[in-house]
Amino acid sequence: MKSDKRYGIAVLGCGTVGGGTAKILVEDNDFLKKRTNLPLFLKYIVDVKFDHAKALGLPENLYEKDFDKVLKDPEIGVVVELIGGTTLAKEFIIKALKAGKNVVTANKALLAHYGRELFAEARKNGVVIGFEASCGGGIPIIRALYDGLLANRNEALFGIVNGTCNYILTQMTQNGKTYAEALAEAQRDGLAEANPTLDVSGLDSAHKLVIMSSLAFGKYVSLQSTPVIGIDTLDLADVLAGQELGYTIKLIAMAKKYPDGRISTIVCPAFIDKKHPLAWVSGAFNAVSVYGHAVGHTMYYGRGAGASPTASAVTSDVISILSGAAEKFFNTYPIWLDNLPDADMLPYGLSEEKFYIRFNVLDKPGVLAKVTAIFAKHNISIASVVQKNEKKEEHSIPIVIITHYALEGDIADALKEISFLDELSGNTVCIRIMEEHKEKF
Amino acid sequence: MKSDKRYGIAVLGCGTVGGGTAKILVEDNDFLKKRTNLPLFLKYIVDVKFDHAKALGLPENLYEKDFDKVLKDPEIGVVVELIGGTTLAKEFIIKALKAGKNVVTANKALLAHYGRELFAEARKNGVVIGFEASCGGGIPIIRALYDGLLANRNEALFGIVNGTCNYILTQMTQNGKTYAEALAEAQRDGLAEANPTLDVSGLDSAHKLVIMSSLAFGKYVSLQSTPVIGIDTLDLADVLAGQELGYTIKLIAMAKKYPDGRISTIVCPAFIDKKHPLAWVSGAFNAVSVYGHAVGHTMYYGRGAGASPTASAVTSDVISILSGAAEKFFNTYPIWLDNLPDADMLPYGLSEEKFYIRFNVLDKPGVLAKVTAIFAKHNISIASVVQKNEKKEEHSIPIVIITHYALEGDIADALKEISFLDELSGNTVCIRIMEEHKEKF
Repeated sequence: MKSDKRYGIAVLGCGTVGGGTAKILVEDNDFLKKRTNLPLFLKYIVDVKFDHAKALGLPENLYEKDFDKVLKDPEIGVVVELIGGTTLAKEFIIKALKAGKNVVTANKALLAHYGRELFAEARKNGVVIGFEASCGGGIPIIRALYDGLLANRNEALFGIVNGTCNYILTQMTQNGKTYAEALAEAQRDGLAEANPTLDVSGLDSAHKLVIMSSLAFGKYVSLQSTPVIGIDTLDLADVLAGQELGYTIKLIAMAKKYPDGRISTIVCPAFIDKKHPLAWVSGAFNAVSVYGHAVGHTMYYGRGAGASPTASAVTSDVISILSGAAEKFFNTYPIWLDNLPDADMLPYGLSEEKFYIRFNVLDKPGVLAKVTAIFAKHNISIASVVQKNEKKEEHSIPIVIITHYALEGDIADALKEISFLDELSGNTVCIRIMEEHKEKF
Repeated sequence: MKSDKRYGIAVLGCGTVGGGTAKILVEDNDFLKKRTNLPLFLKYIVDVKFDHAKALGLPENLYEKDFDKVLKDPEIGVVVELIGGTTLAKEFIIKALKAGKNVVTANKALLAHYGRELFAEARKNGVVIGFEASCGGGIPIIRALYDGLLANRNEALFGIVNGTCNYILTQMTQNGKTYAEALAEAQRDGLAEANPTLDVSGLDSAHKLVIMSSLAFGKYVSLQSTPVIGIDTLDLADVLAGQELGYTIKLIAMAKKYPDGRISTIVCPAFIDKKHPLAWVSGAFNAVSVYGHAVGHTMYYGRGAGASPTASAVTSDVISILSGAAEKFFNTYPIWLDNLPDADMLPYGLSEEKFYIRFNVLDKPGVLAKVTAIFAKHNISIASVVQKNEKKEEHSIPIVIITHYALEGDIADALKEISFLDELSGNTVCIRIMEEHKEKF
């Protein structure tokens, strides 16, 4: 252990995760010192108010409102940013980096927007940013990507990385709740925010996808190039219809690398085959499947949110930085957001998928013939058609079509053409079907 | 990058995994150099014959029979031991360590028997042993334990860590094959050795359990203190009876830490609730569930064997050593086999579990009363009794009893007493039931 190292830690923001992290660092301090052989200690909890810190019983001598004092303290080696958001958090992190402090953050929105800038700033100042807690809560998925799987050319990454959405979809799937009912329940149980937009819109998952897929493929995947479809317009009828066909609905953050090197990313609700391990992930749990050319399919499962699981990831970053290991990874491998070339993204429309499509049509002879003719014209081959008996509205019946692999652009063109049919009644629903990614050995 | 570092690699033993590793290091050399920014290169393949290396198309200029030459080569930084077994492999590893070479190994038997000695030797010589590939093949579970989960007091670890057994049990469960049929099939498909004893006896799983649980709990768990029950005596009838009751049979490597600090380990076939994620792991796949006090339940899933997945883990160790990160972990944390105190093991008989027990009894009135009286006498509370209609042999019917939590020793005593009953016909079967481990938050 070098004597010039600084083992003091400052936690910025004492909310749910900040409080959980401070609690572990204080209550388990003896255990952590013994386990790591590092004399680490929490020195400051920085916030504007300390109600939550007090409620958690955290010692008052740690409370500090003056961040500049923290920055000037030579004992502080790591600043843990758990403020959230992309304004104040960014400002504080840049100050900390410029002051020569290592930073640990759980802030996916910030990294997805300003990751390159922040990593470059860290490098300029000879320090490190740890961000395990930014994706998948307590699951050590970031480490798997930069360490355990590093020998792999990764081909695909599929994640269930938003616990709120997965809880809602599990309620719809397993208990037949509507989206509105399931959301209300999640809010009541503290599993969804009063304003759930960031989660249910898919944007939170997109933030995580951008971080994970950049690491996985060694190319910078931007948020702007990732289409995002949320779960907020999902109809229970489709969830149940998909289930009858052997699928489970999940909000999936998907990234694929095509043989020509192009990358496609999307966040969207997707039907997964019930035999795929991701289909088993229920409730507030998260999981990420990664497909490497050597290792094949590996999956990482655990709690994607919550004070204590996220604090576990944050603390492992703090330890890894103080041990000196994180610095080796960060300064040796050229795989971090600031030193990755831009990804060559597959333009939207060119990815090939299977689709579930549901129309409501007026119950007249010849409608199905018209619809299938339009599909044929757009080179879309149909795997199955199910015409449901139950009438949704007067004279209107739902038709569910499952396609073979088809170009997303062709599907969009066909659906546009179909939308002009007089027999169409109400909205058309189109949901991707995610097949098991083929391992190549 | 320091100029005094040595980036040459020697692979010892060109069998399945050795060949796979050499292939990755040769064929993906440009990719690996670019991805890691390390000028690593395979310099030697050391073996007594090179048929397999030739069949794989590995360059002949790498072939070397003289290990001493390798040891004297100052360019060699890492020796990768993939010979297997506990005699020659041990000798070669000790030679390599004494010559100041870092070692990477997939050899669980060797580490389970001589891990302390080998780690101490590495430390004495200022080098590192990487052993990710020793447990769970390509799954980065060892890293999860020494890095990603390090902030946790781990409470339990349950693993499916033998692909041969899991393949056989999946065949029995899903396709109704007998043990003998499933084994023959596994042998035909190259998923089981001609002599499958090491796998089906549970011993291979025990080797892995000893390594993983020592790391997880920070105490040295010895092979000698781990009871091992294999799958080779499993009756299809029990597999199917358990399935009807909502359970799936798996060979589980279990380790638990009790609140008083005592540890219990066992490898045995166990019925798992179908809702537990480990129940989903089928075929040759492996998975390990770890329960930490902060993170709760995390699970790691992937291919537990095979040339290419295991080579992925081996190569990640090589890279991590050459980057300097592995040395930081190895020399900072006191969690390695050579610096752990002995675990205080729970004596066999004192662990509390639920059990599935099947008797065959003569079809006479009063038998069940006698059996249940014996259970009651030994403080075993019964959750359910199922008397199957089908007669197994003339006048003999199977009775299945599911117990509540009971002391293993009480169960053993009761079964012994029952074995003296005149009405008993044939063997009694007793299988543990593994309930979901309760997360503590």
